[in-house]
Amino acid sequence: MIKAMVHRIREVLIFSFVALFCKANGGTTADWWATRPPDPSASYCLSWRLAVEANNLRGWRTVPTQCLGYIETYMIGGQYFRDLRLIADQILSYANEIVPAGDGLDAWIFDVDDTCISNILYYRDKRYGCDPYDPVAFKAWATKAGCTAIPSVLRVYNKLIESGFKIILITGRDEETMGPATIDNLNDQGFVDYERLIMRTAAYKGQSAVKYKSEIRKQLVEEGYRIWGNVGDQWSDLQGEYLGNRTFKLPNPMYFVP
Amino acid sequence: MIKAMVHRIREVLIFSFVALFCKANGGTTADWWATRPPDPSASYCLSWRLAVEANNLRGWRTVPTQCLGYIETYMIGGQYFRDLRLIADQILSYANEIVPAGDGLDAWIFDVDDTCISNILYYRDKRYGCDPYDPVAFKAWATKAGCTAIPSVLRVYNKLIESGFKIILITGRDEETMGPATIDNLNDQGFVDYERLIMRTAAYKGQSAVKYKSEIRKQLVEEGYRIWGNVGDQWSDLQGEYLGNRTFKLPNPMYFVP
Repeated sequence: MIKAMVHRIREVLIFSFVALFCKANGGTTADWWATRPPDPSASYCLSWRLAVEANNLRGWRTVPTQCLGYIETYMIGGQYFRDLRLIADQILSYANEIVPAGDGLDAWIFDVDDTCISNILYYRDKRYGCDPYDPVAFKAWATKAGCTAIPSVLRVYNKLIESGFKIILITGRDEETMGPATIDNLNDQGFVDYERLIMRTAAYKGQSAVKYKSEIRKQLVEEGYRIWGNVGDQWSDLQGEYLGNRTFKLPNPMYFVP
Repeated sequence: MIKAMVHRIREVLIFSFVALFCKANGGTTADWWATRPPDPSASYCLSWRLAVEANNLRGWRTVPTQCLGYIETYMIGGQYFRDLRLIADQILSYANEIVPAGDGLDAWIFDVDDTCISNILYYRDKRYGCDPYDPVAFKAWATKAGCTAIPSVLRVYNKLIESGFKIILITGRDEETMGPATIDNLNDQGFVDYERLIMRTAAYKGQSAVKYKSEIRKQLVEEGYRIWGNVGDQWSDLQGEYLGNRTFKLPNPMYFVP
């Protein structure tokens, strides 16, 4: 009985608030949706995410705890995939202007983790990056080969191959321990027919991603490859040397690789 | 009378909708705010803005018309200034780790338009960038010296000077026609005590911003300056050569300078 009364009072209060709001704005329901008071935390988290994507925020270790809900909604609520779709369209519109020479040396570089295949399922259990990086747990996850394809990237990947480009995958994953699982995972998810999959060998252990990937790209250029595009979810994929003619930063607000 | 009835019917409909919504979710008003259905256009425009800030979208001439309302709300509704505040905090936290040598050669580079001083008032009349760039109208506006300070940047600017850094302003504005107005505008808005204001002279006319600004930075480095930071609203401020130890991209979804 009391519960019902409380419920009724709540409904009346909501009603009064809505009615007052509409009157104050002299407006329609559409206005009223539009003037929804902003959530101050979401507003901060949007600024935070923008700063990450524009490379203004560097060396961060965890997502701010207050942004857990925001990042979760971003990653699984649709906006992340919409962001990817728009970038994929940009990549294809740029690639369409290039005519591959047909000598098999027109290359595109792709990173693997959260570029081709997604770790969302893993990061869901790590509070979308609010928990600190756990290399042992991540390795255990990666060797299960359970990453899922990022659909927009797979679309771009296939179109580039169709257009005559060679795809070279460069990943910081350790070749010795994660090689077979990575190959399986990529194949299972449709990332086939790549020119090369370059993983980190003992020679590059402990090197920063910028240094390791620059060195690999340098070797590719020396072999004669023309790098038309370079796609990654980390700025460390897209900085350093031999970057290629154009870089594309895919969103990733869950972790930072130096 | 009929108007009042329509109004009453609308209120009842809204009330029923809200009550139904709360019941369906078994939840509170907070849930109900949170589950507000997303506006598909805002969602696209957010992806678009992100792609601009992450440098995935290049060479664009106008803001997509469907994003006029979104960009207006972004620019004057608070989020733009919140984004700037977060970047300003990042700049200061980075700068705090540097101890200037005291020889007057520890420099920071700042762009002028929409970095130090804002053209929002001008772009309001150009539908926040939905209208194409109009060099004659922009020059007329700039010579009025009516740009307003960007508060977060002014705060950073003053703190850097206080800490012993030298500020060097590099702008693509034409020295001959816009020199006096630019100097006045900066002074009026509190941007004083800079080391140098470098404007585009006849020698650099027609050059891309990347090339012109790289050349200027090269000369500064040859003079002995150590560029610790480089702040601009355009990627063309932050690409090319002699970029400095770290770059900071301020938001600007209204126009693109190649």
